[in-house]
Amino acid sequence: MSGDPVLLTPGPLTTAASTKEAMLHDWGSRDGRFIGMNRKVREGLLELAGVAGSHVCVPVQGSGTFAVEAMLGTLVPRDGRVLVLVNGAYGRRMASICRIIGRAFSVYETPEEQPPDPGEVGRLLRGDPSLTHVACVHCETTTGLLNPLAAVAEVVERHGRRLLVDAMSAFGALPVDGISFDAMAASSNKCLEGVPGMGFVLCRREVLAASGGNAHSLALDLHDQWTAMDANGQWRFTPPTHVIAALAHALDLLAEEGGVAARGGRYRRNWRLLVDGMRAMGFETLLPDAAQAPIIVTFRMPSGFPFERFHDSLRAKGYVIYPGKLTGADSFRIGCIGAIGEVEIRGVLEAVRETLMELEAGR
Amino acid sequence: MSGDPVLLTPGPLTTAASTKEAMLHDWGSRDGRFIGMNRKVREGLLELAGVAGSHVCVPVQGSGTFAVEAMLGTLVPRDGRVLVLVNGAYGRRMASICRIIGRAFSVYETPEEQPPDPGEVGRLLRGDPSLTHVACVHCETTTGLLNPLAAVAEVVERHGRRLLVDAMSAFGALPVDGISFDAMAASSNKCLEGVPGMGFVLCRREVLAASGGNAHSLALDLHDQWTAMDANGQWRFTPPTHVIAALAHALDLLAEEGGVAARGGRYRRNWRLLVDGMRAMGFETLLPDAAQAPIIVTFRMPSGFPFERFHDSLRAKGYVIYPGKLTGADSFRIGCIGAIGEVEIRGVLEAVRETLMELEAGR
Repeated sequence: MSGDPVLLTPGPLTTAASTKEAMLHDWGSRDGRFIGMNRKVREGLLELAGVAGSHVCVPVQGSGTFAVEAMLGTLVPRDGRVLVLVNGAYGRRMASICRIIGRAFSVYETPEEQPPDPGEVGRLLRGDPSLTHVACVHCETTTGLLNPLAAVAEVVERHGRRLLVDAMSAFGALPVDGISFDAMAASSNKCLEGVPGMGFVLCRREVLAASGGNAHSLALDLHDQWTAMDANGQWRFTPPTHVIAALAHALDLLAEEGGVAARGGRYRRNWRLLVDGMRAMGFETLLPDAAQAPIIVTFRMPSGFPFERFHDSLRAKGYVIYPGKLTGADSFRIGCIGAIGEVEIRGVLEAVRETLMELEAGR
Repeated sequence: MSGDPVLLTPGPLTTAASTKEAMLHDWGSRDGRFIGMNRKVREGLLELAGVAGSHVCVPVQGSGTFAVEAMLGTLVPRDGRVLVLVNGAYGRRMASICRIIGRAFSVYETPEEQPPDPGEVGRLLRGDPSLTHVACVHCETTTGLLNPLAAVAEVVERHGRRLLVDAMSAFGALPVDGISFDAMAASSNKCLEGVPGMGFVLCRREVLAASGGNAHSLALDLHDQWTAMDANGQWRFTPPTHVIAALAHALDLLAEEGGVAARGGRYRRNWRLLVDGMRAMGFETLLPDAAQAPIIVTFRMPSGFPFERFHDSLRAKGYVIYPGKLTGADSFRIGCIGAIGEVEIRGVLEAVRETLMELEAGR
């Protein structure tokens, strides 16, 4: 599109041309058209998670991490204690946020290629009655691992605690219907295929209503953002109007595609094609297929592999991939999400094939 | 432009068509083109303030308030104390931020139509040695009042304290060369004529370097944002790529226009034409011309004036104005900034004239 490379990354991602074209206007923040667009986006996001009756959607300016920090700061009372499930950078980031904003927390850490054991979560909750909340990443983008959110939610509910979910890289592609959570944070820019610049948190209404005064921050106070927005439909502070317009259009495209199931299906086909093709060329995935979300795939770096030249050659052929984020092993990552499909995946596989031949010839 | 109304507001504003068209691409956050664009923006913003040798530019995702909170949270140590100069909503907001994030503060408040007295600032600083910082709004958008930033800066420096400036609605149009400050926060979307979605703080390098560990927030930690960005040119968390691209282009347009002096000159012509025209129709400005910044003008609401009908009629004619934000008196505001000039100001004056006749006829 316009000569742009295909972004096979954890984000920012390739978006549809029409999504970007939705930004070719200016809106006043009090304008009825803009307020209507904002309301439609908030309602649409609740419906995607199947929580329109119980939750409210509070958008937050900034990246997804801003929404995650706002969720933890607003919904965990100052005397609360969070059990953070960690198996990658995004779980660790939630623990860092708790430390920095002054919320007590414990960590249940598993290796980066291993999901948490819901039974162990239950034992930890039984063993420490001071734990009020559990924080869990749905898809850990560090590896691409799918965490067992439904099973964790069931255990958390059984123990009468409250679940906060970082669903950043999964929201809109992996269904969460029927899963009980107090809050779920995500952003405009992953599986929703909008442009980056805003996050949002779906919050259980009565929990959010009781959260006034918790927050450590003015800008990241979801309670204040919500009460102000519910009063007049406007954002407290200047909204990222163009980003919201792109998201409104992107949600229309998601509906046209057939919703969460259809989008997840396209990503799953991307993933299957990618993994089969890469394996056929000798690459190994970090994770077994059963542990993998169809979002982003971590490949083990072959011994002595010239990753920089590999990356740069793919970039020159029009495909952007990402280095790995593992703490323990060299790796690289290729994403399956964004406004891409079979054509782009076959394209990157062909580019990998050509690059391997060039590297071979150059040795 | 594309049938959009002209936004004569404090923001979001009317931007150039080419600025919006700069968003018609996707960029990976590690892409060399994007990293170069980001560097160019950061350097350009320093040059606009004449502090390229002494300061660094740290961009922040979110609205301008996010940047102001990041500035206060990162640069005021936990044992610091801020003298906040208040004569409107944005001064009050800085005091609220200090209260919420747990920084001690005192307020020097003057009426909304009265700038602070630099002599009084000096007396307050002499009288309270625990005051480490002074926080001042350059142009208080509540009224459009221009605060005496240079004189305040001189007093603060003479007393060996540190100045933090909210320059949101003035940056890029009112010169700040030669004014000494530790930090100045502004955003992509006011006089720079980019789209909303990011702020930035120009920070004195050695002050920022010494600020590690101060911040109350992970997302709003300027020290962490800076050290990460200086290491590899990348943002810590997903950058608002499209907003940055628009700002990069908007900065090119600012340079083409002739820089800060030329942009301020255009806004001053807009302001003069607007105020003269409105006064000729019987409207009164809140402020005398000498106290007014050429950014946004507050008009007193005539007794019994049907503002909603006035606003809606102007909107139907293609012009968006804002209600007032005064605590004490009814008012409305018309902005002078954004990608607008004589044509748009003459247009809104004509629309006001027609609307007044319609209102008269309808009575």
